[in-house]
Amino acid sequence: MKRVEIIGIEGMPEIKQGDDLPTVIYDCALKQGINFEDGDVLVVSQKVVSKAEGRVVKLSSVTPSPTAIEVAKAGRRDPRFVELALRECKTVVKKIRGHLITETNHGWIYSYSGVDLSNVSGGRAATLLPEDPDRSALKIRESLERLCGKRLGVIVSDTCGRPFRKGDINVAIGVSGFKPVKDLRGKRDIFGYTLRLKKVAIADEIASAAALVMGELNERIPVALVRGVEVEIEPNATSAPLKKRRERDIFLQSC
Amino acid sequence: MKRVEIIGIEGMPEIKQGDDLPTVIYDCALKQGINFEDGDVLVVSQKVVSKAEGRVVKLSSVTPSPTAIEVAKAGRRDPRFVELALRECKTVVKKIRGHLITETNHGWIYSYSGVDLSNVSGGRAATLLPEDPDRSALKIRESLERLCGKRLGVIVSDTCGRPFRKGDINVAIGVSGFKPVKDLRGKRDIFGYTLRLKKVAIADEIASAAALVMGELNERIPVALVRGVEVEIEPNATSAPLKKRRERDIFLQSC
Repeated sequence: MKRVEIIGIEGMPEIKQGDDLPTVIYDCALKQGINFEDGDVLVVSQKVVSKAEGRVVKLSSVTPSPTAIEVAKAGRRDPRFVELALRECKTVVKKIRGHLITETNHGWIYSYSGVDLSNVSGGRAATLLPEDPDRSALKIRESLERLCGKRLGVIVSDTCGRPFRKGDINVAIGVSGFKPVKDLRGKRDIFGYTLRLKKVAIADEIASAAALVMGELNERIPVALVRGVEVEIEPNATSAPLKKRRERDIFLQSC
Repeated sequence: MKRVEIIGIEGMPEIKQGDDLPTVIYDCALKQGINFEDGDVLVVSQKVVSKAEGRVVKLSSVTPSPTAIEVAKAGRRDPRFVELALRECKTVVKKIRGHLITETNHGWIYSYSGVDLSNVSGGRAATLLPEDPDRSALKIRESLERLCGKRLGVIVSDTCGRPFRKGDINVAIGVSGFKPVKDLRGKRDIFGYTLRLKKVAIADEIASAAALVMGELNERIPVALVRGVEVEIEPNATSAPLKKRRERDIFLQSC
């Protein structure tokens, strides 16, 4: 029977800078009776990765620039929050109605550079995205693999808005251990038809699946185990195959 | 333990126009030992819904227009395929490098209106999207609920490309039985911070989760059961809350 299981890793304590996140995850999983298996994928929320890596900024330490103040006013935002979003991006793609769409240093298109006030400290501090989510995923994977002796995949995930469709979905912003995009080009279907263009963003689908147990609010489940997906093991994999070059983006050019 | 299961419904025969799809799904599930439970969500691929509804067109029956011929040439496509894409849309959003981005009659933005040559008949026929995927989902849900006596959710899903990120993901194009978007605006996190804008497209996340067992090629698993997700039951729900009005799409205006 083709079956995938998604299990929330429970009992995670509040994560602070310097915490050994992989060991915390491993211990909590063990307490739940979970022994990791070859091919398991761990999806870890950006929020706890950022906290462990010290990517938390108190708003009281931020002095907003005039641009930040102007955008914040139009968007009814805290100017210090907007300032962080401006600092955390490579390019401001657009300022519109006080809303900021940016391209982060990693090459992701984000609302406010992924800077986030939720689940930090009641609005007094913000998390920034990990400096290099692929490196974060790699480190977590290496540590977890040392602890459990199995070959794993790790995704650092975040919930993001998107064009065309309402509602955020969880996607992969860092990947390690498996190919994030399944390339079906040139494969034949059951009727002998050859797929021309088909690529599947399996890492994003796994991240979305994980969100079904992770929640957004007070579930305190920042990590999920996804078991049973046929992923292609690739030790050097990163999230790069998920990134579209903007000038090659047919959907964007259609706008 | 917070746990979600995704189980592929196996042994489905090739679906033809007029087949009683809900009964086929129910029988195959039973043979697998699956008894549906309250709150189960069935994700049904657009492909089998379209086949059951007779939304299959032989290319030999299609006469391409001059526009179709021109677009097909640039995109190295079959002009009859392009003709179907043109007929199936409300608006051509953009023709670019022989690629067609359209808005379908249902209001989804699609590559080639969702017309698809794969898994039909080796390239000689195409499936069109169901005429009204929400109505399809409703009918499947009502029939399945009559058969099993439980309250279910049903998603009609399709794998689509998207802006910003490479690789297709599976999304919901028809929904019945539960709210497709979870509205967290105004809710407080564990630190007392009030979420301002957070809405989660749970139907899309469920569709992506289902894709992890459904596959794209020769898995012959066009239906998946997703069990354990806390969905909000709503008998009148449709996919409408997932649709963004293009003029209100901040991401699009950023392009």
